Amino acid sequence: MERAIAVAAFLLVLLIASQPADAGVRRRPPTLARHYASLLRRQHQHAVTAASAEAPVVPSAVQYETRYYTQRLDHFNAAPGSAATFQQRYLVNGTFWRGRTAPIFLYAGNEGDVELFTNNTGLMWEAAPRFGALLVFVEHRYYGESMPFGGTREAAFRDAGAKGYLTVTQALADYAAFVLSLKANLSAPAAPVVVFGGSYGGMLAAWMRLKYPHIVMGAVASSAPILSFYGLVDPYAFYDRMTDDFRNESQHCYDVLRKSWHELDTALATSEGSARLKRTFKLCNGSGVEGIPSLLESAVVYAAMTDYPTPSGFLTPLPSYPVREMCRAIDRAPRRSGDDEDDTLSRVRAAMDVYYNHTGAAACLRGEEDDDPYGMYDGWDWQACTEMVLMTYGLSNDSVLQPPWPFNLTDVLDGCRNDTGVPPRPFWLETQFGGFDIENVLRRSASNIIFFNGLRDPWSTGGVLKSISDSIIALVEPKGSHHVDLRFSSAEDPEWLKQVRAKETRIVARWLKQYYSDESIDVAA
Amino acid sequence: MERAIAVAAFLLVLLIASQPADAGVRRRPPTLARHYASLLRRQHQHAVTAASAEAPVVPSAVQYETRYYTQRLDHFNAAPGSAATFQQRYLVNGTFWRGRTAPIFLYAGNEGDVELFTNNTGLMWEAAPRFGALLVFVEHRYYGESMPFGGTREAAFRDAGAKGYLTVTQALADYAAFVLSLKANLSAPAAPVVVFGGSYGGMLAAWMRLKYPHIVMGAVASSAPILSFYGLVDPYAFYDRMTDDFRNESQHCYDVLRKSWHELDTALATSEGSARLKRTFKLCNGSGVEGIPSLLESAVVYAAMTDYPTPSGFLTPLPSYPVREMCRAIDRAPRRSGDDEDDTLSRVRAAMDVYYNHTGAAACLRGEEDDDPYGMYDGWDWQACTEMVLMTYGLSNDSVLQPPWPFNLTDVLDGCRNDTGVPPRPFWLETQFGGFDIENVLRRSASNIIFFNGLRDPWSTGGVLKSISDSIIALVEPKGSHHVDLRFSSAEDPEWLKQVRAKETRIVARWLKQYYSDESIDVAA
Repeated sequence: MERAIAVAAFLLVLLIASQPADAGVRRRPPTLARHYASLLRRQHQHAVTAASAEAPVVPSAVQYETRYYTQRLDHFNAAPGSAATFQQRYLVNGTFWRGRTAPIFLYAGNEGDVELFTNNTGLMWEAAPRFGALLVFVEHRYYGESMPFGGTREAAFRDAGAKGYLTVTQALADYAAFVLSLKANLSAPAAPVVVFGGSYGGMLAAWMRLKYPHIVMGAVASSAPILSFYGLVDPYAFYDRMTDDFRNESQHCYDVLRKSWHELDTALATSEGSARLKRTFKLCNGSGVEGIPSLLESAVVYAAMTDYPTPSGFLTPLPSYPVREMCRAIDRAPRRSGDDEDDTLSRVRAAMDVYYNHTGAAACLRGEEDDDPYGMYDGWDWQACTEMVLMTYGLSNDSVLQPPWPFNLTDVLDGCRNDTGVPPRPFWLETQFGGFDIENVLRRSASNIIFFNGLRDPWSTGGVLKSISDSIIALVEPKGSHHVDLRFSSAEDPEWLKQVRAKETRIVARWLKQYYSDESIDVAA
Repeated sequence: MERAIAVAAFLLVLLIASQPADAGVRRRPPTLARHYASLLRRQHQHAVTAASAEAPVVPSAVQYETRYYTQRLDHFNAAPGSAATFQQRYLVNGTFWRGRTAPIFLYAGNEGDVELFTNNTGLMWEAAPRFGALLVFVEHRYYGESMPFGGTREAAFRDAGAKGYLTVTQALADYAAFVLSLKANLSAPAAPVVVFGGSYGGMLAAWMRLKYPHIVMGAVASSAPILSFYGLVDPYAFYDRMTDDFRNESQHCYDVLRKSWHELDTALATSEGSARLKRTFKLCNGSGVEGIPSLLESAVVYAAMTDYPTPSGFLTPLPSYPVREMCRAIDRAPRRSGDDEDDTLSRVRAAMDVYYNHTGAAACLRGEEDDDPYGMYDGWDWQACTEMVLMTYGLSNDSVLQPPWPFNLTDVLDGCRNDTGVPPRPFWLETQFGGFDIENVLRRSASNIIFFNGLRDPWSTGGVLKSISDSIIALVEPKGSHHVDLRFSSAEDPEWLKQVRAKETRIVARWLKQYYSDESIDVAA
């Protein structure tokens, strides 16, 4: 059961990335972090009531030891306080490892409990036996159990001074120091390390190969929007792509969703309208109607991002291709006897049922709650408003989300400054990792990176979509969604998904072959 | 005159790198920093009395504007205090620049006043007209005028907390942020940047190409001992190479020097011996005989490092190939009527005359002084004992310096901890920049670096001496010394030196040609 909860949380943390807190966009009140926290709580409740009867969602092969590495607080400062340490959690499975010169597959933990990523990165588990690889999943500082300043979340997040050490560069340096220590302890200095990651973890994986090529010899960066920064990406592209996902299913579906926001606002403006909403949406007691737009928006954004080709057994169970199913629900809902508003709202309610209540087990729709029961949002809220200022804000006139939100960097930065109390640095990660002219730069200064992107995933708009060289390879799948390649395989996987995973495995095998040849290491085939 | 002093200081800062303070080695009392400071003071005094009559040592073409960039204190921490800024000095010459898409030649300032490097990096000045390059010399934080915490040295070095921000990674990030800002201000986003540096500056140049390939498209790293770290280099190699420099001139010279240390110690042990030393070495009034071994050691170390093929007009004027001249002085000194000790000491006194009094203007030999008149050592002492723990400690049995000093990392680290009050991190820069298996790593993850090394230079023992690919090129010159290639050319330069500089220029031209082709930028030849 805890695993089901953990898995639910896994996908939710991805969502957090979609918008820094308090972006000033209507229907994202007051911060998305709270919104997702409430969503997580709902999934938790669902898990408690329903999941125990379901098949386990994590394969039984997922077994690991939990260990801790004593990590330095600040790698880039020599002052006495910087040498403070904390316990960084990592999970290890050595079942498949062929030892010493066999590969180490490292998951670069992202914004959440490392168990989430361990339990869901099927690609690593399924490839490990073939490669004889050691599996290692390392937790990102300030997430899960890996808290500086004594190990508690309260201390780590007590103020901006304490949170200051939560940066991308520190996290990558953590991984670098950790890997060298691990290899030393294993007496395996020549073992090749391949780093994997999805979403923000995919960004970390790619960046780690760029910055620490002497430590990781290749990276599998899945759905890593390393170009989602100011000046590198169209800030409307994220929601435009999401819009296309729905419009491509059905123009009617798009039309209904697009006008629903105005109709929700209109209804919410009167007490009569609010009462009607409460009935139409079958809200649970204690849930306020004012949260409906936000719930709808989450369903739309999340369905687009995780528009997987097979049913996902995590969160509330979702059908395959949930965008298609939501549009079908909208298109097929019985025509309401009332006016056009009634009809629109009953149709979007049907779409929300796909997302929030696919099993039909919930008798009512639960609204937003303002807490963060798993403590997963403090970290990302901070990151998203200090360094990871991802350019996913703009809503164009045609957006399926309405009204439009003309992108304005100043507003975004002002909002962030208000939230964190520190000046945001929207250009820092570009300074650190590049992005401008990435093809010419990486062709001459990097190798061995796979960038997977699924084009249904709005995050793909910030991804690397063109191969750069014969070892920096973009795998682009029109039907793919957010790091679908990393998921455990299933018998129902479509052919294109099998092909993607097979390609990734072949490319990693080629890197390893080259590595062993370079190093004159003789390995059994 | 001030330039002569500055130039004198330039080479002295190189010397500082030879040993962290208080390495526990006999005849380096009490810290080498103080020793070099006293040497600098002596040069200063010489300059005051003698240099005004000499030809200017800095060519008249060396003209620049002094500017300041508002630099962030801590790039890797998001806490409010990290956003504090300081004024980073840089010097610019735009005389030769062809504008916008023409190259920018950047000197990566090292441990000293940036004017020193500006005035002495002739290669950049002499190549700029051909390339139409903008010349930019940026000062390293905590040196020269580029002091955090209000701009004064006192504030920047007040305690370990303030000094903590003096790290290699911060300095490189400074340069990255600075270059992007400079290019934006010049409306020259596509201008290719080539970074140059010598000694520690050469390490910074190479590391900058590795870590910021999107910002600098090539690096000329002269005498950059990026492999002088623990486990990558034989810790005896530095002084062994220096020993070879002398022994290869003359076995007798080596024998005399080698036994002189014991004879100096023996003489210093009695008041009669000390009185004799005072006469033999013609010490100035107020200078103590106990400083003689250290003065001799400096002359030996320094002559080996700057064993240039042409007379150097800086410091006290040195002859060409000063090691050869010192050995000639030892070998040719008239046989003393006294015992063997007298003979040995009078010979090393003659060698010291080559180094300290080549013009013959000084009537007496001035001893050590315990100050740091130019404030150039606080920074390096800190760096050399925190991150830049260079492995140049060991004195083997055959060393020209005696007695032997068996290398012991623990002793080195203990000494450093005592000096700085913080734990040294001898493995950190290897973690950050690599070094282990450098050929295989860089062949697949880097390009466009020239590593020049002169084999007479003891620092070459930590250099990259084999080409790694067709764009990571080692230029190794058996007769070369410490970044001799960067010096201004002179009519007396030997053919090999002309060839080295011509090669470097050709390689940079090839990189630029490739860059313009990659970027589809049409430039006039």
